[in-house]
Amino acid sequence: MERFKRNERIAAMVKILSDNPNKLFSLNYFVEKLNAAKSTISEDIVIAKNVLEELGLGRIETVPGASGGVKYKNSVTAAESMEFLSRIARTLSDPGRIITGGFLYMADVISDPQVAWAAGNVLAGCFDGEPIQYVVTVETKGIPIALMTARAIGVPLVIARRDNRVTEGSAVNINFLSGSTGRIQTMSLSKRAMERGAGVLIIDDFMKAGGTARGMVDLMKEFDARVVGIGVMITTSKPEEKLVSNYIPLMYLEGVDEKAGKVSLRPNDRLPV
Amino acid sequence: MERFKRNERIAAMVKILSDNPNKLFSLNYFVEKLNAAKSTISEDIVIAKNVLEELGLGRIETVPGASGGVKYKNSVTAAESMEFLSRIARTLSDPGRIITGGFLYMADVISDPQVAWAAGNVLAGCFDGEPIQYVVTVETKGIPIALMTARAIGVPLVIARRDNRVTEGSAVNINFLSGSTGRIQTMSLSKRAMERGAGVLIIDDFMKAGGTARGMVDLMKEFDARVVGIGVMITTSKPEEKLVSNYIPLMYLEGVDEKAGKVSLRPNDRLPV
Repeated sequence: MERFKRNERIAAMVKILSDNPNKLFSLNYFVEKLNAAKSTISEDIVIAKNVLEELGLGRIETVPGASGGVKYKNSVTAAESMEFLSRIARTLSDPGRIITGGFLYMADVISDPQVAWAAGNVLAGCFDGEPIQYVVTVETKGIPIALMTARAIGVPLVIARRDNRVTEGSAVNINFLSGSTGRIQTMSLSKRAMERGAGVLIIDDFMKAGGTARGMVDLMKEFDARVVGIGVMITTSKPEEKLVSNYIPLMYLEGVDEKAGKVSLRPNDRLPV
Repeated sequence: MERFKRNERIAAMVKILSDNPNKLFSLNYFVEKLNAAKSTISEDIVIAKNVLEELGLGRIETVPGASGGVKYKNSVTAAESMEFLSRIARTLSDPGRIITGGFLYMADVISDPQVAWAAGNVLAGCFDGEPIQYVVTVETKGIPIALMTARAIGVPLVIARRDNRVTEGSAVNINFLSGSTGRIQTMSLSKRAMERGAGVLIIDDFMKAGGTARGMVDLMKEFDARVVGIGVMITTSKPEEKLVSNYIPLMYLEGVDEKAGKVSLRPNDRLPV
């Protein structure tokens, strides 16, 4: 006699799978956890898969074979992405957010767990299927979004520092030119932070000239890493020519007009999701 | 005729609720989303609630009344916390992690999304029921755990900076004495970062003398905030007297013996979860 009813098993499965994106669970894991026959678990999975897809709540993928099993992937449709990004663009376009110097206050938004979560899902979707072993960012403001992107992809997050820390052991340091300030800055990453030769996705919150992203690309070379992509929450429309070429922004900041109290921010309507 | 079967509705509900911890959903939300009668949805909720609780996957709470509804809370049992913390303690006790100077390399572990997620759930559980409007941390290494704690509680994250940033507008700066280095350091937080008079939970990755935590407590005074608790991933056993008194560590670092290549780290077996 089975311990749980079908709807109970399915509820448990959906919870476990979606809490662990991209992690492969063997059918035996559920057979034991839910005390049911393998054929029963297989049927449960089909039902869970269908309803999540129909409601746009994600995708359950089955991997055949002896070492196979089942895993969960977030999935975000183009319409959902646009809805989310339009909402964030509206929030950030509040003239009250303009800071002297033509900056936009957005720390509260980009470190909000639910915003970071949704942005991470969209960014992960933009690079779906790419061979990514690490998500890489540089402190500080991009960390929440980078962490949630790493979570959605199911890989570790690597955080480069702005200076060398004694608590992180021997490190690789690089200097880079910040395109917007024109100043030389430093970026540092512990030699222990990643395996050599990995595929990495670079994530940051904001890009203007692209100097920081360029610095991260250069830092990755020191680890023989292959940069499979660069994702940023917001990029300025100008300068059009950035110091990196292959990047995907979720939003474009067209301009901040301090005098008129106007912010022009628009979602990227050509996201590959 | 109902559009989804019971097990499909329950799968969808569990996914939506657990993706949004502590967010109250009206029954009508599910009535519309899943195209079912209110009484049906109520029955679905009871089933979902029971199976999540039985399998230790969290708690679904119902809030009665016109403005009521249903919400999800992570729940972590003492046994699960100990299992998780013992596993992390073993990982971090690897002598290969010892860095010259008696430090322990742990950046990879504490910024791993799954570790941060689990630590955030445990920390949120330690302060369950407290009136928390914000989770507060200071850059950099505590951010992943603080973000996941904020997510589990369902509140925004506030990140104090080590220096004043022009992009964050006018800010409150405080100086504090780092108890371990004996140096004066600065902490800065934009005046826009939080409402005055809020209840806050302070989260950090590591505590030695408690100077940084003390600094955060002082910074919160400038915002008339009430600190309802301090949670840290790891604290050193010595000095026993910290600069803050009311804190909960998930683990105690008893010592790092560089010469013998030995790390003594143990889970806190008195967590209030």
